[in-house]
Amino acid sequence: MKREEVFNFSAGPSVLPQEALERAAEEILNYNGSGMSVMEMSHRSAFFQEIFDSTKAKLKAALNVPDTHEILFLQGGASAQFSMVPLNLMEGGTADYAVTGNFSNIACKEAKKYGTVHIAASSQDDNFSYIPAQDQLDLAPEAKYFYYCSNNTIYGTAWPYVPETKAPLVCDMSSEILSKPVDVSRYGLILAGAQKNMAPAGVTVVIIDKSLAGREVPYTPLMMSYKTMIEKDSMYNTPPCWCIYMLGLTLDWLEKQGGVTGMEAIKHEKAAVIYDIIDNSRLYKPCARPDSRSDMNVTFRTGDADLDAAFAKEAQARGLMNLKGHRSVGGLRASLYNAQPMEGVKALAAFMKEFEVKHHV
Amino acid sequence: MKREEVFNFSAGPSVLPQEALERAAEEILNYNGSGMSVMEMSHRSAFFQEIFDSTKAKLKAALNVPDTHEILFLQGGASAQFSMVPLNLMEGGTADYAVTGNFSNIACKEAKKYGTVHIAASSQDDNFSYIPAQDQLDLAPEAKYFYYCSNNTIYGTAWPYVPETKAPLVCDMSSEILSKPVDVSRYGLILAGAQKNMAPAGVTVVIIDKSLAGREVPYTPLMMSYKTMIEKDSMYNTPPCWCIYMLGLTLDWLEKQGGVTGMEAIKHEKAAVIYDIIDNSRLYKPCARPDSRSDMNVTFRTGDADLDAAFAKEAQARGLMNLKGHRSVGGLRASLYNAQPMEGVKALAAFMKEFEVKHHV
Repeated sequence: MKREEVFNFSAGPSVLPQEALERAAEEILNYNGSGMSVMEMSHRSAFFQEIFDSTKAKLKAALNVPDTHEILFLQGGASAQFSMVPLNLMEGGTADYAVTGNFSNIACKEAKKYGTVHIAASSQDDNFSYIPAQDQLDLAPEAKYFYYCSNNTIYGTAWPYVPETKAPLVCDMSSEILSKPVDVSRYGLILAGAQKNMAPAGVTVVIIDKSLAGREVPYTPLMMSYKTMIEKDSMYNTPPCWCIYMLGLTLDWLEKQGGVTGMEAIKHEKAAVIYDIIDNSRLYKPCARPDSRSDMNVTFRTGDADLDAAFAKEAQARGLMNLKGHRSVGGLRASLYNAQPMEGVKALAAFMKEFEVKHHV
Repeated sequence: MKREEVFNFSAGPSVLPQEALERAAEEILNYNGSGMSVMEMSHRSAFFQEIFDSTKAKLKAALNVPDTHEILFLQGGASAQFSMVPLNLMEGGTADYAVTGNFSNIACKEAKKYGTVHIAASSQDDNFSYIPAQDQLDLAPEAKYFYYCSNNTIYGTAWPYVPETKAPLVCDMSSEILSKPVDVSRYGLILAGAQKNMAPAGVTVVIIDKSLAGREVPYTPLMMSYKTMIEKDSMYNTPPCWCIYMLGLTLDWLEKQGGVTGMEAIKHEKAAVIYDIIDNSRLYKPCARPDSRSDMNVTFRTGDADLDAAFAKEAQARGLMNLKGHRSVGGLRASLYNAQPMEGVKALAAFMKEFEVKHHV
């Protein structure tokens, strides 16, 4: 298929801005008159240092990161952070975990290796279809931090509020970072794998309150110390240079779209197009409770696994790619990240209506 | 500068094959009719799975990896392996470390967190300018493994032999992998950051004897268990897809050059061009002892730091990039990895002769 015939609804890695990819294509053999690809440059070269510094500065500006916090570009995905957070912040004590989906559940299990986990909330009782309210949170007074995942990619839920806690907030924002303004000063640590709203898979953004660094347990692996990474400005060793470069190109595009405020203005509008169809359908059923719905990942199902499969297959033939739900839950899922244009959302909406007429009398 | 005017002697990240970059440039907006960039693809998609499987198969063929061993594509660079090796293989016991440069030294320090390190050899007494001989190795009978770094990028030395040990060999081959045939069956574990001879920074290749997996200590981070990574075929979470794709393109190019046998045939020839100039010069002095010289990283100096700096600067003006030695040792260094063409080596040789005439009467 031609690129212009395709809309990619993958939950991650996901569609990147056309403009960012075109720029990368132009520069891939020769970056800025260096005679080299960004993929071939020493990370200590002036060329790459400029890419690194400007990308960091653009991200700092985009999220209005205060000087109390440091931005890190790490490797290993959010899954490496599931260990790095307790290794560095738990101090062998207790931490609060809110379990609202697959990834917070894994993070919670991992933390048990390093201290005492207190389950502050869980929505497992209703198949992770909702987000517990503030007054349902059971906070441990001695907690070193409160961990949650603000957008649950698999279940299609998102926290509609920022928890009020005494302990520092640690938040996995992988699948919603850069989709709206965030008051970074309220967080002790924000982590996000890049491959949804930022860049290709291979770089993980961490934004950490510097006062929390330096508490790692002695057996913390070298590459898993926030303190070391802060001191070395993410370059203890060679960073994932190409992914950082791509993040910079995405941030250039984001700025032209009005930044995170611009994204917030359209993200709900995009999601509403699909949720409206689901809510007015006799075929499609929503998976997430209305008050907990994610604008990034819209999950739904027909109730018939074969029909779900037919939906994904017919959609694909039309260039509407990757609409199958996560293998652990089935059903259907449309990921509407920043780089998903309204045109793609409308094409999906049109297909959904057609499919309903065809399959539900 | 234009790309054809530049030869890149960077020690890492390093020059990639022109053909691999051109192919990436062609496909960057639309891979194989998918309508998507490789950077945007779900790692669980059929398109990416084919890239992953074929890249692994090509690497297995290139290095003739036996079925007893598994190939892993990990993140975090060799530095993450400095922890992952002792976490998984040391079992809280003793391991032999040969310290022949900066990176084996860091690996050795890191291992001390997880068990007892026995220094089996060190060349620190002569500023890491040589590799200890087999009969100089002091092997601990109870060692769980013997760790060494086969090519020392900073010092320009390479092990001229494979150590004979009772304990399994663990070898950091970052800066010489794919430059010659290797009998993988002799190794318990081979690790290599990709950014020298394989791919852009962001993927680390590990080749592990499967019988060594499953011995990790209980506090091993989730992403640092070889067993988990073997079970999940390197996809516990999203792998660094673009880097794996680029590795595949490099391997396609490598095959056309006669594979690792082809590389071995020319690597010594390329290095000899530069070593011959050094050995017959009144200006340039070699850093590494002749019997321990690396074909990948040729280190030398004039003995005058200002003159070294002038060399690197004048070379750069001619398009001979990144000849400055590592910041920790100074001097000069020419990295002659697989993708460095003989044409680049000859251009450097010509410049070295001219520079000597100009600066040494």
